[in-house]
Amino acid sequence: MVKVGIIGATGYAGGELVRLLSRHREAKIVWYGSKSYIDQKFSAVYGNLFRIVDASCLDDNMEELSKEADVIFTATPQGLCASLINEEILKRTKIIDLSADFRIKDVSVYEKWYGIKHASPSYIEEAVYGLCEINREAVKQARLVANPGCYTTCSILTAYPLIKEGLIDSHSLIVDAKSGTSGAGRGAKVPNLFCEVNENIKAYGIASHRHTPEIEEQLGYAAGEELTISFTPHLVPMNRGILATEYALLKKKADGSLPTYEDLRAAYDKYYGKEKFIRILEKGVYPETKWVEGSNYVDIGFCIDERTGRAILLGAIDNLVKGAAGQAVQNMNLMFGFPEEEGLDLIPMFP
Amino acid sequence: MVKVGIIGATGYAGGELVRLLSRHREAKIVWYGSKSYIDQKFSAVYGNLFRIVDASCLDDNMEELSKEADVIFTATPQGLCASLINEEILKRTKIIDLSADFRIKDVSVYEKWYGIKHASPSYIEEAVYGLCEINREAVKQARLVANPGCYTTCSILTAYPLIKEGLIDSHSLIVDAKSGTSGAGRGAKVPNLFCEVNENIKAYGIASHRHTPEIEEQLGYAAGEELTISFTPHLVPMNRGILATEYALLKKKADGSLPTYEDLRAAYDKYYGKEKFIRILEKGVYPETKWVEGSNYVDIGFCIDERTGRAILLGAIDNLVKGAAGQAVQNMNLMFGFPEEEGLDLIPMFP
Amino acid sequence: MVKVGIIGATGYAGGELVRLLSRHREAKIVWYGSKSYIDQKFSAVYGNLFRIVDASCLDDNMEELSKEADVIFTATPQGLCASLINEEILKRTKIIDLSADFRIKDVSVYEKWYGIKHASPSYIEEAVYGLCEINREAVKQARLVANPGCYTTCSILTAYPLIKEGLIDSHSLIVDAKSGTSGAGRGAKVPNLFCEVNENIKAYGIASHRHTPEIEEQLGYAAGEELTISFTPHLVPMNRGILATEYALLKKKADGSLPTYEDLRAAYDKYYGKEKFIRILEKGVYPETKWVEGSNYVDIGFCIDERTGRAILLGAIDNLVKGAAGQAVQNMNLMFGFPEEEGLDLIPMFP
Amino acid sequence: MVKVGIIGATGYAGGELVRLLSRHREAKIVWYGSKSYIDQKFSAVYGNLFRIVDASCLDDNMEELSKEADVIFTATPQGLCASLINEEILKRTKIIDLSADFRIKDVSVYEKWYGIKHASPSYIEEAVYGLCEINREAVKQARLVANPGCYTTCSILTAYPLIKEGLIDSHSLIVDAKSGTSGAGRGAKVPNLFCEVNENIKAYGIASHRHTPEIEEQLGYAAGEELTISFTPHLVPMNRGILATEYALLKKKADGSLPTYEDLRAAYDKYYGKEKFIRILEKGVYPETKWVEGSNYVDIGFCIDERTGRAILLGAIDNLVKGAAGQAVQNMNLMFGFPEEEGLDLIPMFP
Repeated sequence: MVKVGIIGATGYAGGELVRLLSRHREAKIVWYGSKSYIDQKFSAVYGNLFRIVDASCLDDNMEELSKEADVIFTATPQGLCASLINEEILKRTKIIDLSADFRIKDVSVYEKWYGIKHASPSYIEEAVYGLCEINREAVKQARLVANPGCYTTCSILTAYPLIKEGLIDSHSLIVDAKSGTSGAGRGAKVPNLFCEVNENIKAYGIASHRHTPEIEEQLGYAAGEELTISFTPHLVPMNRGILATEYALLKKKADGSLPTYEDLRAAYDKYYGKEKFIRILEKGVYPETKWVEGSNYVDIGFCIDERTGRAILLGAIDNLVKGAAGQAVQNMNLMFGFPEEEGLDLIPMFP
Repeated sequence: MVKVGIIGATGYAGGELVRLLSRHREAKIVWYGSKSYIDQKFSAVYGNLFRIVDASCLDDNMEELSKEADVIFTATPQGLCASLINEEILKRTKIIDLSADFRIKDVSVYEKWYGIKHASPSYIEEAVYGLCEINREAVKQARLVANPGCYTTCSILTAYPLIKEGLIDSHSLIVDAKSGTSGAGRGAKVPNLFCEVNENIKAYGIASHRHTPEIEEQLGYAAGEELTISFTPHLVPMNRGILATEYALLKKKADGSLPTYEDLRAAYDKYYGKEKFIRILEKGVYPETKWVEGSNYVDIGFCIDERTGRAILLGAIDNLVKGAAGQAVQNMNLMFGFPEEEGLDLIPMFP
Repeated sequence: MVKVGIIGATGYAGGELVRLLSRHREAKIVWYGSKSYIDQKFSAVYGNLFRIVDASCLDDNMEELSKEADVIFTATPQGLCASLINEEILKRTKIIDLSADFRIKDVSVYEKWYGIKHASPSYIEEAVYGLCEINREAVKQARLVANPGCYTTCSILTAYPLIKEGLIDSHSLIVDAKSGTSGAGRGAKVPNLFCEVNENIKAYGIASHRHTPEIEEQLGYAAGEELTISFTPHLVPMNRGILATEYALLKKKADGSLPTYEDLRAAYDKYYGKEKFIRILEKGVYPETKWVEGSNYVDIGFCIDERTGRAILLGAIDNLVKGAAGQAVQNMNLMFGFPEEEGLDLIPMFP
Repeated sequence: MVKVGIIGATGYAGGELVRLLSRHREAKIVWYGSKSYIDQKFSAVYGNLFRIVDASCLDDNMEELSKEADVIFTATPQGLCASLINEEILKRTKIIDLSADFRIKDVSVYEKWYGIKHASPSYIEEAVYGLCEINREAVKQARLVANPGCYTTCSILTAYPLIKEGLIDSHSLIVDAKSGTSGAGRGAKVPNLFCEVNENIKAYGIASHRHTPEIEEQLGYAAGEELTISFTPHLVPMNRGILATEYALLKKKADGSLPTYEDLRAAYDKYYGKEKFIRILEKGVYPETKWVEGSNYVDIGFCIDERTGRAILLGAIDNLVKGAAGQAVQNMNLMFGFPEEEGLDLIPMFP
């Protein structure tokens, strides 16, 4: 039984970690860390867990926690994990960081987009980018995993096989993403009030959202060259779910013809054919976020628009599961040699 | 492995049965019955089940189905189950009817409130009202279970211990209930369109809703006398969840004093103290439907209003789980001797 | 042209006052008071008013404001208006207070339910309770109007004629009310976040909500005696709207018979027959909050439940219009002799 | 007083026409046409209009109606207006068609995308495309106006000045649009049920939506050449509102440099500077659909993404107002010489 500590357990991603790990047969939560609710019953913060979790919240003391836990999840704001980590801790425990601190290899890019100084740049090199389906083998060996962002998980996985196989012009890639409001966290801010979000849709972070360089870096590895994309997130009046609509020009094949639907399908099958958590939908079927709600699935559909020579790709995830806590658990499973789907065998809920 | 057939598998309650039974370790669905989607892949109707359920829908042939299944769930409109049932079928298979056909013992009451003639009144006597926490032992012996209605499950369980113990005046009981829209089913009707329900709340079935006599009958058994209640359902712009707010005058105890909070608490503990699926919340905490979403829990909170001499009771369930499919599976578990929580060990999802 | 000042213009009720007054032909806003947004453009706070309101926010200086405005609306937290008001101000300007400070005649009741000391008890006697349809003549003479609460407006108007005419037993009255989330204001609090409210319904303030004594006082005047009611508010995942479902035992008439539907209808017609803003729905039709959204209407429907001997009354308003800003403007119209519907001739928006 | 007839008055666009025209000082509705609700009170279909509209619904008899009305709005499915129109009718009355029948000049394009034969191709030439801000003078002379589609109104107006001025590469234009559910109409279809739409987002009509050729034709006129765009609509869980997010490569200016923010702003100001209903937001502010809800405004924001060389344009409208009924009334005002904003002087409602 692996002992698990969570720092930031009372945020939405933290709460979702608790939901998932409470049914995990190989893991046991020993530390519910929270800055705001120390000494309060965890189930007083999340009433859904009444009579399921009996523990109270502890502080965010990573030093002490590292002595008790085999693995620590940090579901905390940017900068915190980097400020707490050190060699002593990493020798004692594995860390899965749900913040952005170790996602981006180029520290100057991190510091520019996030506007803060990185407190532990020396660990960036070692950290493994925990996109399980792409970096599975590296994750297995890691002691520090950078759990990908929600938008990035969805955006990258939706385009990855086509870029890897050179079927689309990666410089033409545009990602128009739509997210439920839990992605904004549980902080008490006016823009996230019910009355501000409900019956409303807006874009935000236009040409400036922090997930942009993360997508660019990872898809750049797939493309074998640096690339620049347009990424526009939108806030949708729903709790959970991300839908990414992606546009890219098709790239001519060696024989001068444009790729067909079957070419694209073959690329998806090549990389994802055996993946439990990625479902390539049937031709003509496109993802709906409701179909993945509460689960760790990524649903992907796509088509070729012959009129414009573009591929249109659509991917959907539950931002709190595959986009945060679920993928973090999947990473833990890989790191500890558990079956990859342990604790994640969740059927999406409809309606 | 018990073989399960579902008639009406493509309605919301039917779809929820599929979700729950797909993770049940002792049951296997062998028949996905549907009037509207015969020969279509079940996962084409419910995209959430893509790659989880591979079967196609069959017709609603109970005769044939009874030869293949050990138990049949009928998640169908009123009247259908009663019209199909017969001794041959009941000799071969158990039936859990999610419609109202066998819930009400007095056939004239059924026929008056439902406005249809009962096709199999001879089985009413035998049928067991499947409110598991109240009728557990009878359910274990049953071959025909009448699965309770969604409003009724919530309304009855919330008041039952207090009526049984004579702590409230059952003639003064008023149930003001609020339900998510999945309770209205998946039929294509204008009043259930998104734009009609969203940003709106209304009452319906005022002084005439069909769940009224069902509540009255069951609470009448608890009271040991016939009773008449006011029951008003409301339609709330959310998918799932029922909240029942109940008002009743406190009944003087033998010593002439009014019952205290502790008296009421003791009654709840007496009847529900060992129940896995009923959570009596702590003093001052009242249920929210979100806390039970996706789970089989019933959450109950209550208080005494000394100014008015009333008890105010609040109960919450997920109408599709404890209010329909979950309770049906719980009944199946009882009927076949499985652990009562098998397939129902679901943690509510928040947010 | 009446000059209007608003203190608390950037809350939801304040913003609604701006929306309504911007189309009022006899009024002109000269002061947009705000504690949080001083010197910021009002339209930067409420983007809907871009190019409609050009002014910037000022502070909440009632002293100075009273020299510039003919009437001041205070859409502020409890206690503020009472703390600012004085004879100098009232000699210069009329005040319509949207807080609870002057609604309750018994200062000890106010202090008990609100938990604060009243700073200007000497003005309570003078203040007119601004429920226009009931107190129209007094409002016309008032210099200080206590604008009723949202729940109270809906709850009182729905029951008033029946209590006034002695058709129902006022001691048996139970008000189960449901409100959209704008009633909770624009403060940044976790319980009002989108993800906490959406897909959820809960009761709050059970047996303790502050609108209770306000309803009791006003209905007590109608009954001609003190009365005690049960009042339970619920939070509904929608922006606007209040629905009050009210239950009361019918009171025998002089001849010993129970009142009929027609008796109740006659009472409603007697008091509301000429009211522009109160719509008594046709028999068998019950209000939906969507039907009054954005307007100053009160919709009322009712029925007699012969089985239980109760009347069930339903009333609906838009909490920000008739429940706050609309009624405040209606009061202003009365106080200044304008046509009562000026600025309020709004057609509800559907969907 | 202009006499107005509405065919299809009980759909959502028809209902909105009634809402707007009921407050229009120069128009009077004389015919509420409806296929489904003949002889029923209009206010029984739209409860919001109780006591505001007293009339009952009539059939969809355009022949007879044309003898009574000065102008007819057809808010009906594709094909109906074209099948009813003839010279006799057009001699007697003006027609504003809210369907697509007369929007596309090339009848073969219409027949290909809509899959129906056009019944009156001879009137296509004469029909004026009623995008008021672009075709104002032609509308004034028209007797047959093709009222633009909801997506198209928003998509075209957002990009028009930049294409007209050659600031963006029109061949690179991608429109990713998001719409509230009222755009799907009031037909009783499973995909539009509350439980299917709520807590969900999906794309539909991918690379095949019928508004695509309409956008292409109109923007082609602005570009001075044919163009092909990618257009992807999405269904959002809200009642009203369209947000269009548009991407296009900036086109080098004569001096070889890329256009600046100020260049784009100047283009918007040139075409829309005097438009009452188009609001160009301030730099760094982007539209939210809630800010235009219930009004005839188009809100536009934009930025230059220097990293990618693209302009990102965002436009928002209320799909039932500027996207349907509001623009239709605006067209009527132009055709009859009324002030263009008559009946449309609506302040958006927030929240």
